[in-house]
Amino acid sequence: MLKGNLAIGQSGGPTPVINASLAGVILESMDHPEIKSIYGLVHGIEGALKEEFIDLSQLSSQTLQLLVSTPASALGSCRHKVNDREYERILNVFQAHNIRYFVYIGGNDSMDTCLHIQRLASALGYEIQIMGVPKTIDNDLAHTDHSPGYGSAARFIALATRDTGLDLEAMATFDAVTILETMGRNAGWLTAASGISKEDEADAPHLIYVPEVPFDEMRFLDDVSDVHKRYHRVFVVVCEGIRDHNQEYIGQIQKSDVQDAFGHSLPTLTTGVASFLSMQVKEKLKLRSRFLRPVLIGRSFSACVSQIDRNEALEVGREAVKQLANGRSGYMVTLDRISNEPYKSCPGFVELSSVANSEKLLPLDYLSDSRTMISSSFKEYVKPLIGEPLAAITRLKNIRIEKKLG
Amino acid sequence: MLKGNLAIGQSGGPTPVINASLAGVILESMDHPEIKSIYGLVHGIEGALKEEFIDLSQLSSQTLQLLVSTPASALGSCRHKVNDREYERILNVFQAHNIRYFVYIGGNDSMDTCLHIQRLASALGYEIQIMGVPKTIDNDLAHTDHSPGYGSAARFIALATRDTGLDLEAMATFDAVTILETMGRNAGWLTAASGISKEDEADAPHLIYVPEVPFDEMRFLDDVSDVHKRYHRVFVVVCEGIRDHNQEYIGQIQKSDVQDAFGHSLPTLTTGVASFLSMQVKEKLKLRSRFLRPVLIGRSFSACVSQIDRNEALEVGREAVKQLANGRSGYMVTLDRISNEPYKSCPGFVELSSVANSEKLLPLDYLSDSRTMISSSFKEYVKPLIGEPLAAITRLKNIRIEKKLG
Repeated sequence: MLKGNLAIGQSGGPTPVINASLAGVILESMDHPEIKSIYGLVHGIEGALKEEFIDLSQLSSQTLQLLVSTPASALGSCRHKVNDREYERILNVFQAHNIRYFVYIGGNDSMDTCLHIQRLASALGYEIQIMGVPKTIDNDLAHTDHSPGYGSAARFIALATRDTGLDLEAMATFDAVTILETMGRNAGWLTAASGISKEDEADAPHLIYVPEVPFDEMRFLDDVSDVHKRYHRVFVVVCEGIRDHNQEYIGQIQKSDVQDAFGHSLPTLTTGVASFLSMQVKEKLKLRSRFLRPVLIGRSFSACVSQIDRNEALEVGREAVKQLANGRSGYMVTLDRISNEPYKSCPGFVELSSVANSEKLLPLDYLSDSRTMISSSFKEYVKPLIGEPLAAITRLKNIRIEKKLG
Repeated sequence: MLKGNLAIGQSGGPTPVINASLAGVILESMDHPEIKSIYGLVHGIEGALKEEFIDLSQLSSQTLQLLVSTPASALGSCRHKVNDREYERILNVFQAHNIRYFVYIGGNDSMDTCLHIQRLASALGYEIQIMGVPKTIDNDLAHTDHSPGYGSAARFIALATRDTGLDLEAMATFDAVTILETMGRNAGWLTAASGISKEDEADAPHLIYVPEVPFDEMRFLDDVSDVHKRYHRVFVVVCEGIRDHNQEYIGQIQKSDVQDAFGHSLPTLTTGVASFLSMQVKEKLKLRSRFLRPVLIGRSFSACVSQIDRNEALEVGREAVKQLANGRSGYMVTLDRISNEPYKSCPGFVELSSVANSEKLLPLDYLSDSRTMISSSFKEYVKPLIGEPLAAITRLKNIRIEKKLG
């Protein structure tokens, strides 16, 4: 193993467990004397460009313990598309600080960044070993059973759906339709997680819409109307990224299309797909409708973390450094599922080039035939990932008391 | 004490602890042999009108235990303005079922319903004792230090603000403005709770807007711009019910004002105040902006309950029945604060006529001089109500590593 320093960065949208991966990298690095100092990049690769590092070599065990349960990216994160000149600058900075190990925690774009650094270093003859650590609430990274971050975000969506579903049920003589918007860009994994705790046809959610299935507004309104006739309430979960048959995003009213009474253009009215569909339900079905848009809350809420997700996040961080110590470079750590009952997984690895810029979408057999509900095979897939089962609730048995007046 | 049956109902928007109050009423009723059967009204007062009751007399202790931690209103709730003919019907139904005790868990509208039933029963000479149990996440009930439901909803908002505030901090080289919308109708109590865990000027939230202070859009844009210059990020919390100097709600674009390219009217564009302000920030300040709208999630999420709130919710339910047993009628149970450290409260009571249709707004001395932040006296008020302190986090100490390339 080369003697030198290790740089670690966090990239893209945070997750509730991304800092557990960071802690895993730090903890494992401390066990390898070849790794001299641990440098945290401030705001990911931007920290490399600006030469802004935090010294992580001397963190107390108390700080590391708190770090494991601190939400959002503690080093700061970024969304930065690196250009060729910047890649050279990054390598110059790494060289100046004798950085011989680089670990990047992120999604497919970040794996692409790792790949570029690896290739340039190789071309320039600079010895550096690079490992990627998977992280995304969207769960769209290829060649891994799932990605750390997804389990916790899925737990939040599952619980929010169940609890606000009970709220809608309680208010069903007044409210009619609730539409919950989930994150996930092009992938329906998070949206699908809303169905985990559904036991009965009447339970929320009643309808889910994922980006993998082209969205048809007429069909949607028919679906909502049908469910309303059956249950007098409709709970819909919709992914932010749904598109119609022409690949146009739903709910984008362009600025130029909309004018006020004086003919002035109004600001862009893109307020998200749930808000748009909620308006359609009110306008076309004349039903009361509300939309919920927790967005960032689901990817950072610390009171609803999957313990399995957190443990795995820490584990993949450790594994990256173990692989570096084995002399490996140019891979992303993966999670392979060994068994469901009891749930067991183990880390593996895959070449960066296989995951960079590729997307794993929700397979259609994880949906029901109608494609507006999940299948039992998806339930099996997702159930262990959310950690402990959701806390039990009771529905009061309907022991009706006989009418006397009628 | 009269011998007869007790009817119990839940009214208005649910809270995460409203079922603890229901459990309290049931548990205490079981201790009074004069109370023969316990009738749960299905969907509140609508259940009385439709003669739809659930028998709660034989619930197992296991069910009661689960009930305490089940979110939303387990009996079903309603928003129903009762008219004179309906009040007569309600009394006929109560009489037919020998209901001699009525407990209603709700807000100020529900206390008004109780008051009307009381007066009519008295006029008709039907002997019935009535007690109200306070419940509102808005915390706007008068003559009580606070209302059950508020502490848990406040905890959710406080945690959502802190955690998504960390998310914004992590993404500050990309994202700029986050606007979180809170419930609360005319009262800023929940909005103010977002400031609980702010320790430093730079922490979220940076700006809060409550309905008690007239909203000025130009001032808002200036505020946002100022904070952005200082911290490169702005976290705003805004109450759904803010109004301008003319008492007009902010963010209501009327249908008639908006047309599409063909001159057709678009549906009403009321997608909430946060969505509207987010558009203004993008359009006028040219800053990236996102809005979060958890709404119902905050009033029903079971993973973020204040244990103190839950205990008090159960206690006020019990107290209502104790007061009935004392022969009292026509009151709402209240919570009086005895001390802050350690926090102690005890139940009291107030005449229904004092709370019906009255609203307790956030006092202005609970705000800072700028009126866009909370004061230390509000922090003292709210801190015990959210229960256990929020789980600790760490911010990585900024031990900068010396630049070599510059």
